[in-house]
Parts: sequence; structure tokens; C-alpha cells
Amino acid sequence: MRATVLFGAGDVRIENVPDARLIEPTDAVVTVTRACICGSDLWPYRTMEHSDTGRRMGHEAIGVVEAVGADVGAMKVGDLVVMPFAFSDGACVFCHEGLQTSCVHGGFFGTVEVAGAQAEAVRVPQADGTLFALPVGKDDALMPSLLTLSDVMGTGHHAAVAAKVGPGKTVAVIGDGAVGLCGVIAARRLGAEQIIILGRHADRIALAKEFGATDVVSEQGQEAIERVRDLTDGFGVHSVLECVGLEQSMGSAISIARPGGAVGRVGVPQDETMPTSQPAFYNNVTVSGGPAPVRAYIEELLPDVLEGRIEPGRVFDRVIGLDEVPDGYRAMNEREAIKVMVKP
Amino acid sequence: MRATVLFGAGDVRIENVPDARLIEPTDAVVTVTRACICGSDLWPYRTMEHSDTGRRMGHEAIGVVEAVGADVGAMKVGDLVVMPFAFSDGACVFCHEGLQTSCVHGGFFGTVEVAGAQAEAVRVPQADGTLFALPVGKDDALMPSLLTLSDVMGTGHHAAVAAKVGPGKTVAVIGDGAVGLCGVIAARRLGAEQIIILGRHADRIALAKEFGATDVVSEQGQEAIERVRDLTDGFGVHSVLECVGLEQSMGSAISIARPGGAVGRVGVPQDETMPTSQPAFYNNVTVSGGPAPVRAYIEELLPDVLEGRIEPGRVFDRVIGLDEVPDGYRAMNEREAIKVMVKP
Repeated sequence: MRATVLFGAGDVRIENVPDARLIEPTDAVVTVTRACICGSDLWPYRTMEHSDTGRRMGHEAIGVVEAVGADVGAMKVGDLVVMPFAFSDGACVFCHEGLQTSCVHGGFFGTVEVAGAQAEAVRVPQADGTLFALPVGKDDALMPSLLTLSDVMGTGHHAAVAAKVGPGKTVAVIGDGAVGLCGVIAARRLGAEQIIILGRHADRIALAKEFGATDVVSEQGQEAIERVRDLTDGFGVHSVLECVGLEQSMGSAISIARPGGAVGRVGVPQDETMPTSQPAFYNNVTVSGGPAPVRAYIEELLPDVLEGRIEPGRVFDRVIGLDEVPDGYRAMNEREAIKVMVKP
Repeated sequence: MRATVLFGAGDVRIENVPDARLIEPTDAVVTVTRACICGSDLWPYRTMEHSDTGRRMGHEAIGVVEAVGADVGAMKVGDLVVMPFAFSDGACVFCHEGLQTSCVHGGFFGTVEVAGAQAEAVRVPQADGTLFALPVGKDDALMPSLLTLSDVMGTGHHAAVAAKVGPGKTVAVIGDGAVGLCGVIAARRLGAEQIIILGRHADRIALAKEFGATDVVSEQGQEAIERVRDLTDGFGVHSVLECVGLEQSMGSAISIARPGGAVGRVGVPQDETMPTSQPAFYNNVTVSGGPAPVRAYIEELLPDVLEGRIEPGRVFDRVIGLDEVPDGYRAMNEREAIKVMVKP
């Protein structure tokens, strides 16, 4: 079968690889009908050292179950399923607590250990705990929005939950990528009164406004911090959704949180230390977040997608075939596309 | 009057200073009947550069109101009051939210701006919002425990609240100083099932056990982390109370929190950055806490003190007069005393 392999910074190729197959009795094999490229794929795309064997990319997918192992019971051949970016057994203490990204038998797709979903098919470990069967047909018009339940919509929601967004709260979203835009949807959905998007790309800002952003801050650094304070009586916001992961964005996030506020971070941190520990302390700012347990959130978010109350699928502004995936990486890296959908 | 002045590292003296007096109409002057030395006083005691004018130390007190300004209504001359380490107007948005340490008209005692309470008397700004009148006489046997409501008991409680301690939770307390010991009391009071104290001083550990600690970890660094994991099925604890403030202790705190757990930090951070940002992220560990709004907690904790259900005053293991304060600093710095009470 064909699959996306990253061999080093800027070097992404579509290769012929062995077909996805069952290995463990808890596995399923899923034929991918929709996949996509994630903002987090761009970190290795920019920085990975050369590897002769490469890394099989992709962690978001919708597809059809083609085969199941002997211990798979809930999923059956023919099911149309959404695949969260992390696999999880659905049975351990952390899965029961709704933190599937810390499952004791879990892991992540598109890593050295488990092949990715930007491919014709994907092996899904812990299929019963991981996959979620969708009550729609595979060509349903809702497919883009349903695909976001595999990562970006659940991740934006996680940022909002971690940042304690609720009715009447003031919110800032740092980052106008697909996750930030879904963060705007999530903040509005949870009842935020004011939603400030921090970003600089006109097309993304326009979409953020349609999703519910009430204010835009396009300045950077200290100027951005001042602007947010000006918009919030000088105090800062109750909730900050940090959807970038850089030291500077994290520093800004803490600086624009009001005393007693919270930062929900979902941007994968690129630094070992966190800045502004002391300001966070003196203002009693909570820092929370991490890899989103999107599997836990599907049940909550799915009805809103099915009934059209939220349209996170609008973050996809380009649809390509598998052969065009290398150009899709380039386009996202150059900010030419917000998020690229792949139809293998 | 006489007061404690720190002129530089190791150089603490009792000096004759101008009498405390009303300056603002919202002020009160309080004759100090009990004060104490705080673990946080030891940071400047160890590191402060020489100052010709010095810093007037002390931020915890019980005393009698001697004079009130024209705008003071709730407090009256003769009231026996407890003075939280921060002053606050009781009227601003943050005071209403129970975060008096971020009061827009607030500040801290024992700083360059506002003189401290290790003295015969202290000027209390925002007296109505700051002071809490006690329903006991000034020689009551409960005085040591009531004095802890000005800081250490409220601070230990804040750590527990920030770390989301609740019934059935597993808890680790980093630091066996007075705040850590009060953290043990708070964790038990909030229903924790397992309370692991991390510390190395036999007398403090003994007191921690009497306060409700179920396990003791006296190792340090990576060994301590392994021991805590061994005590918690390998996962770590739900709640960590960080009562030290050093980079190493903060790193340990994050490392012993289980996935989805929380660190409540009340040790004043001595570093600008926070370590282990990435492990905290990947495990969805929440980091919260800061200066405790002890004023908010007095009402909750006072009944338990008055009825003897908690005895935080047992952290005081030495009582001295004002002239002995320099030796009190030395004794606490050399870990000869847990916490020193001062009767001016």
C-alpha cells in the first residue's frame, strides 16, 4: 500500500510499504477514507534529522474497518469509524477517568512505534477502546467536521476545558491555526462572553470571527499583551487557550491571564522549561492542559456536529490525494493552507 | 517603638523606629500580641544585599486594635484581630472572588512599602477588608493555632485546594516546614486517603505523622520520585503540595504527580522558569497555586481551630520575645526550630 513517510526536515514522500495488517488480537485494520495534516506534523517536518527508514506520518483519520483481531468485540468489519490521534484500551484507570492519552496500554499514531494514517490503511491497536463508530455514511457532507473529532476540535475543546472556560468568561486564544480556530468554537460553545483571537493571518482571522471571536489582536509580544489588557479593563482574561507551544507564546499566555485565571495549553511545548513561573505564581494563574483525550470528547461534541451547531470542518481549506501530500506539507508550512484534508 | 529590621543577609536587628500611626483614613494601628517568623522570611535573611535603611520584617500577627482611621467601620478599638500576610480592601472584584492577594488596593506586609509585624505595633492598610476580629480573649490557649490563620495554615490549605485534594485522593507534600505540616493537616481535613510527606527532619516528620501523614519519604531527587511511585502503584499521586519553591522541588512535584493530577504550589518560586514543562504537558498535570488568600480561608478554618479539630499551632516549637528575634531567625535558618512565635 502507499503511505506518507518523513525522512527528514522537508523530505516527505509517498512510499510503497507493506500492507497494514493485524498483529495483536486487539487490533483492527482500517481503510482510510479521510486523513489530514496536523500543525504538529510541521514540527518534525521542519526539524527532523535524516532517517534512512523514516517516520510514517499521520494521526487523524476516518475510515472503514476492514479486519478485526480475535479480541475485538465492539468494532466490526464495515463500520465507518473516527480514529483519535491516540490509541487507548478504554478499560484502564486513566481511560475510566477520561484521560485516554495516558492509557496504560496506549500510545500515539504516526510515531516510531505505530505507523501513521496518511496512508491507504492503518493498523489500529486497542481497536475497541480507540475507535468510535459513526452513525453516517462514508460520503456524508459532514465528513470534514467529523474528521476534526480525531484531533483539532477535541484539542481546541480540551484547551477550553483546561482553561476553565464557562458562561460569561473572557477568553483569549493564542494561535490562529486549526486548533486555535477550534478553540474559538469551543469557547463560544461553552458560553464565553468575550473571545479574543491573537493571530495575524487575514483568512484565519476572518474564519475566527465567523466561529465567534469578538476581538482580534494582531500585534505581537509586549504590544499584544497590552492590547489584551486594554480590552479587558486592564486585568487580562479569565481563560487563555495556548495553541502554539513556543516559549514566547506561553509567556504571553501567562501574562494575559488575569489573577486567578487559567491557561489551557495544547500547543506541543518546544522547550523544556516554562517561562514566567514567578508571574504565574504571584497571580495565582493555573497552567493546565496537554495531549487532548479526544476519545472522551467525541460523545460530547458529536451531536453538535451532526446537528450542524458547530462546523469545525471549515478549517479545511484544501483537499488533496495521497500523492499530493508532500505539497500539502509545504502549503501548510508556508501558511498557504490552514489545514489540508487527504483523500487517499 | 521597637521593630525588627533586616539590613542584609544574616543581619537582623531590633531597632527603635517611629511609632506605627494612621496615615490613610482606611488604616488601623494594631498593637501586636503575637507575631512569628516565616519560612519565606529566610529567603531575604539568606540573600538580601546590604541596605542602609533596611526592611521592616514580619507579616503574620494577632493583636489589639489601638486606633482606626475615619473610614474604618467594621473594626473598632479594642478588637482582638488576626492579620493576614496580605492587606486587601474586601471590596474589589478579586476580593469578591476570594483572591484577596490580588486585591487592586492590596499589598503585602513586611515589604519596602509597608512595615512588618515583628514589632510592637503595625499599621494595617485597608483595615476593614484585611483584619478579622476573633471571638476569643487575647490570652486564649488557642492563640498559636489562631496565629497560623494569618499565613501558614491558610497557605497549606491553599496548596491543598490548588492541588485539588478531596475525599479518597492520594497526596504528596513536598517540604516539612511549617507550611508543609499545615498542608498535611489540610489534606487530611479535605479527606485525602494517603498523605505522603517528603522530608528529612525527624521532629517534623513525627509531627507530620500526628497531623495525618500516612507515609514518609526521606530520600531526595530521583530516589524520592521512585519511592513515591512505589507507594502509589507506579502512577504517582493525584495531588502534590509544593511547599518549598526551589527548581528541584518543583521538578520533583511534577514528576510525582500522576497523569491528570495537580500540583498546588505555595513555596515562593526562586527561579524565573519552571522545570519539566514537557512532562507536565504530556501527563496533563495542572500547576496551580500562588500567594494564599488566607483572608478568604479564615472563615472556613476558624471553626475547626476553635473546636480543636485541627491544631496547626503545634508547628510553633519556640516562643521568644522581640529582643530574641535575631536568634529566632538563626534558629529557623539552621533548622533548630520549626517555627518561632514572637511575643513582643
